[in-house]
Amino acid sequence: MHDAPAAVASFDEIRALLRDLPGPDLQAGSAAATREAQLTKPAGSLGRLEELAAWVATWQGRHPPAVERAATAVFAGNHGIAEKGVSAYPAEVTKQMVKNFLDGGAAVNQLCAFADSDLKVYEMALDAPTRDFSEAPAMDEDDCARAMAYGMMAVDEATDLLALGEMGIANTTSAAALCLALFGGAAADWVGRGTGIDDARLAHKTAVVGAAVARHRAVLSDPLEALRCLGGLELAAIAGAVLAARLARTPVLLDGFACTAAAAVLQALDPRALDHCQVAHRSVEPGHARLLQRLGKRPILDLDMRLGEGSGAVLAIQVVRAACLCHAGMATFAEAGVSGPA
Amino acid sequence: MHDAPAAVASFDEIRALLRDLPGPDLQAGSAAATREAQLTKPAGSLGRLEELAAWVATWQGRHPPAVERAATAVFAGNHGIAEKGVSAYPAEVTKQMVKNFLDGGAAVNQLCAFADSDLKVYEMALDAPTRDFSEAPAMDEDDCARAMAYGMMAVDEATDLLALGEMGIANTTSAAALCLALFGGAAADWVGRGTGIDDARLAHKTAVVGAAVARHRAVLSDPLEALRCLGGLELAAIAGAVLAARLARTPVLLDGFACTAAAAVLQALDPRALDHCQVAHRSVEPGHARLLQRLGKRPILDLDMRLGEGSGAVLAIQVVRAACLCHAGMATFAEAGVSGPA
Repeated sequence: MHDAPAAVASFDEIRALLRDLPGPDLQAGSAAATREAQLTKPAGSLGRLEELAAWVATWQGRHPPAVERAATAVFAGNHGIAEKGVSAYPAEVTKQMVKNFLDGGAAVNQLCAFADSDLKVYEMALDAPTRDFSEAPAMDEDDCARAMAYGMMAVDEATDLLALGEMGIANTTSAAALCLALFGGAAADWVGRGTGIDDARLAHKTAVVGAAVARHRAVLSDPLEALRCLGGLELAAIAGAVLAARLARTPVLLDGFACTAAAAVLQALDPRALDHCQVAHRSVEPGHARLLQRLGKRPILDLDMRLGEGSGAVLAIQVVRAACLCHAGMATFAEAGVSGPA
Repeated sequence: MHDAPAAVASFDEIRALLRDLPGPDLQAGSAAATREAQLTKPAGSLGRLEELAAWVATWQGRHPPAVERAATAVFAGNHGIAEKGVSAYPAEVTKQMVKNFLDGGAAVNQLCAFADSDLKVYEMALDAPTRDFSEAPAMDEDDCARAMAYGMMAVDEATDLLALGEMGIANTTSAAALCLALFGGAAADWVGRGTGIDDARLAHKTAVVGAAVARHRAVLSDPLEALRCLGGLELAAIAGAVLAARLARTPVLLDGFACTAAAAVLQALDPRALDHCQVAHRSVEPGHARLLQRLGKRPILDLDMRLGEGSGAVLAIQVVRAACLCHAGMATFAEAGVSGPA
């Protein structure tokens, strides 16, 4: 565990941690580039696998890179905004799905077993949802900072690749509001069907998001205030986990729209804050593609997924692992006696 | 082993097998659809994972689908056209890379170990390349049909998912010529940089492909004749393996441009012939995207790979396996006590 997180209980402490973010390990990156050029394949022919292996090396700070202790953290929270009828599912599903995670019945359980990833599920006061952000700020600073600290404490330094996910009925509404606050545009740019709402509910969700962001506009130029007013406990925890992973030199895989929106708060605070993160997949939720563009991130997978609960991130663990195994295990031209270009 | 392949030594026998292709198992497909709708997630939220699980079920002819005995077959052949200076690498690299496969040093070895796939490498008369197809038909019918039969014999009925790949210096030239013959257009539409040639060599390669296809034009309306005149032993073997897998009810993952081009011969003969195949990834080779469009196939992965040797297909085994594990292992709404849509 990193020493700092337990102490964090205010935005000032978060800001202080952000002032001192470790950068990439250029020596490990250089070792990766040197080795990559010697491996028995045409230069660049493994495409993003080469890029991912180098990325893991620079953020793990070691060469060769390896994924031997992958971990998945799923944060669950409830949202007052769910009372406004923005989701296809009732709010009690958050708690029911957490039980399903603990019982091993969800997609993320099958995927973690498959990807040999530890799975921890963090319930965040499911009986005490955040306030309805169309009527009041979702959280006080103290609640929000504590949720971030809780997320920070979920990062174990022994983990060598961290997949993050969320569960929270109505949290794509929160994520859309957060994106609108951070990046501007129109509410309709960021609002999608989430778990599968119809046209009428989509229009309602869009109106709710637009009005809520307008209501809190005065304070939203500060990304942490945006998180406090429009976010949720699980989204704050994800932002905290991303930050702690950076301090612990652990590369991170972000899941879909809600997870990436939570992480985007950090990038809005510091443009380098997500350099240790890859976005695992492109969600069907239309705001995600727009968000990826704003963040300058290209997703690893594009499989029309939109489940959340870390499902895309866990699947991408396998691609990153494969990248590292190719990089570490392949023979060089010299070792194999293979001729280079004529 | 399927009974038919050993006997095949003529195109007529191939055509006879194509007249009797088994279709999808609709009962298994229906069982998959019924179960999918009950799993604890919003309908459709696993996207292509749901589609892949159903596809495996219909082509394995069983429910639930599973990937427990994945196999990878890599066919290697040499091409007379390599003498025309169309590749960045000398022709002896085919044999050197086969040795690398056997020694475990190539990307496909690391990926097969990772994906728990059996790997078999088939050397196809590497000391006797096909004829330079810019001067004469690459093969006689007997050679081509025997190569197809050889590919057919590589399919073991115990395999439940088959990944196919190739190795052959200059075989993207052969694949481009094959695509030009099968689908028309201009040579430049189908020719790319392969292992990484420069602009001058790309122009030369394009001219070679255009002239060769013009030379053989009289017979190219028959896809098997196109394969014979412009293909290679490893490409014929891949076409044979795809056909045998269909007869054995084994779903297939096709790798990149050369592999997909070889399989396209079958689709040109019968539009249903590749229904049991997914294309594993979109290659950087520009002809591949065009070919996918013509075949109506959406690739599973898009990772800027262009290595061949089955690398993309083996990586995609893991996505297909994950799809089956989610489908088979997740709890239903009833089992988990999770509420459906409000």
